[in-house]
This record gives sequence, structure tokens and C-alpha cells, in this order.
Amino acid sequence: MSKGLLIVISGPSGAGKGTICKELLKELDLNLSISATTREPRKGEVDGTNYFFISKDKFQEMLLNNEFLEHAEVYSNYYGTPKEYVFDMLEEGKDVLLEIDIQGALSIKEIYPDGVFIFILPPSMEELKNRIEKRATETKEAMIKRLDAAYKELKYVFKYDYGVLNDTVDSAVDNINSIIKAEKCKVNRQIHLIKNIEEA
Amino acid sequence: MSKGLLIVISGPSGAGKGTICKELLKELDLNLSISATTREPRKGEVDGTNYFFISKDKFQEMLLNNEFLEHAEVYSNYYGTPKEYVFDMLEEGKDVLLEIDIQGALSIKEIYPDGVFIFILPPSMEELKNRIEKRATETKEAMIKRLDAAYKELKYVFKYDYGVLNDTVDSAVDNINSIIKAEKCKVNRQIHLIKNIEEA
Repeated sequence: MSKGLLIVISGPSGAGKGTICKELLKELDLNLSISATTREPRKGEVDGTNYFFISKDKFQEMLLNNEFLEHAEVYSNYYGTPKEYVFDMLEEGKDVLLEIDIQGALSIKEIYPDGVFIFILPPSMEELKNRIEKRATETKEAMIKRLDAAYKELKYVFKYDYGVLNDTVDSAVDNINSIIKAEKCKVNRQIHLIKNIEEA
Repeated sequence: MSKGLLIVISGPSGAGKGTICKELLKELDLNLSISATTREPRKGEVDGTNYFFISKDKFQEMLLNNEFLEHAEVYSNYYGTPKEYVFDMLEEGKDVLLEIDIQGALSIKEIYPDGVFIFILPPSMEELKNRIEKRATETKEAMIKRLDAAYKELKYVFKYDYGVLNDTVDSAVDNINSIIKAEKCKVNRQIHLIKNIEEA
């Protein structure tokens, strides 16, 4: 059996990662990576489904034991991707989907370069601006800051394997589906199959 | 505009390259690479469609001028893939399909590593044997020799980017379609697009 693929979906804020990932999970046979967090569960959130809710002590312990693929602090709460949870699924031949910001994706790439690193590109800077403005849950200043960060983040596309344009969700999902199929055809991911043929 | 892709379909005799390429040309927007040959046209063959029919002198001249992507001698006739014909289409953004034996594919890879090198795998050695036996236009001895060569050729799969299993023509064509779409999403093939976004 071949190992599963770790599919990392990343990109700047406002590029549409979240919507694309929801659609991918609906259409394809993928398993979502679940983060561990020290923040309190919100109403309706289920431990082991939305997050693994853990204490700060436990997080600290896991961090010291090098048990995260990546981790980050957001508003005094800690978030991390548990390595074992992801690696176990990959070993079982399951494909894992991981949605994450650019910093997190680059950390994962260092630990697991075998992943498939996909950068979601906004159709244009104009459209990116519109999308960020539409969210507008923040002050104008915060929004400008966020937009400026998104501009800068675009340049990180060159650290990824693939850049998928999010002009429509359907076309982005179709391209990612093709990327997954193609990656499974890569010779270096098919050692098992080829060995079988040789020995037949 | 992005450059076109050079899609090289290769693999052992009996793996089903020819059938797959015919179907790819029907279903996708691909341009077939046309070989130059010194052999006489057969009934119905059209110059510039089936082959470029050229004299031995002309072939020699092109060879000396390094105008072939690859070339081979088969039964005292010469065959070669004209570089200019292929490269012109790629520059125009057209995708080019090239069906070729393993030796030819590896020569092309040295000159043009940017190509997409796809190895067609028979579903099993058993099936490969059946297919070669079915052709049976040769003596039993020649057939055994051909089968033995096919076994040895399978190991060249490791020199390719992708290995596509030809269990059914439909699934092989679907996988190659995905490979083409995925290759177009590769970051290093999208410099143009990304530049546009940055400058927008």
C-alpha cells in the first residue's frame, strides 16, 4: 500500500483557502488534519472534531517532546498540528488535508518536504482587496495592515510546489483534484506498485 | 503567455502507448509531434501529417546541424524529431504530445528536461505478455526476445516523472489529463501569472 498524501493548502488571507477546503472535503476522499489548541471550546465545538482541546501544560509538554508539525500563538492561545495524528493517517494510506497560513506551511515543509504544498492565489490584487474589505470586521487601519501583509505574502508562492488560482471555487477544486491524482502518479510515490510489476 | 508543455509518452513495447495517445489527441487540445523520416511514404501517408518525408542527405545535414531532439535508425531508415517544429509550438503556448520509445525519451530529457516524462506501465507482467503474444506477427523466438526487452525496459520507469498504469485506457487518459493540469499549476511554470498578480 502506498502512503497517503499530506495536502497543505495555504496562501494569503482573503485568497479563499477556507471555502476551497470545505468543498474539497465534500467532493474528495480526504481527512482533515485537526489542530490542538489551548483555547476554550466555543459553543457547539466538539473535542476531536473541531479541535483537540488541551491544557497549556499539556501543550507545553507536547512542544518539548517535539510532537507538533507546526505551532503558533494567537491572542495568547496556542495552536499546533499534532504530528502523530497526521503521520498515523498517512501511514494507513489516507490522504490528509491541512489548511494553514504561510508561516505554518513553511514550518511543515521543513519537517515533511514530501507533502504537496499548494498556494491559493487570488484572481487579482483588486479582487483580494475586495474580499478583505468585505470581511470588514476590523477597523480601517487593521484592514490596510492586513492587505499590506497579503501583498507581501504573495511572494511566498515561490516556496510552494503549486499555485492554484482561485478565480472560481469550482476551477480551483478541479485543479487541486488533478494535482492530487498527478502526485499519486509520480514515480517516486509508486515504489510499491513498480516493485510489484517487477516481481510479477 | 505561458509556454506550452512537451508531454512525452513512453514505455515498453506492449504497454499501450499508441492507443492512449490516439485517445489523448481526441479528448484534449494537444498537438502531435511529427517525425522526420528517410523511408518512403506508404499508401495514404501525407507529408507533414504522418511524417516529414526527407532524403538521406537532408537527414544527414539536419543531424550535423543538431536539429533533432532525438533520432534513431530502424531497418536502415532514419527517424528523428525535428527540434524547431516542436519548440516553435511550445513557444506559441501550444502543448505538444510526443510518443516515443524509451531510448528516444531519455535523449529528449537530456536536451529538454522541462518536458513532462510519462511512462506507461502495463497492468501486470502477465498482461504485458498477453499483449505481446496477441500481436504475434513474429516468430516465437523474436517474441520471447521482445518480452525479455520489455521486462528490462520496465526498470527505466525510475528515470521518468510519472508512471501511469494502463489498466484501462480511460483511467490512463484521465490520469494523464490530471498530470497535464497539475503541471500547469506548478509554480515554476507560472512565472508570468504570478508576475501579473504582483504588479497588479
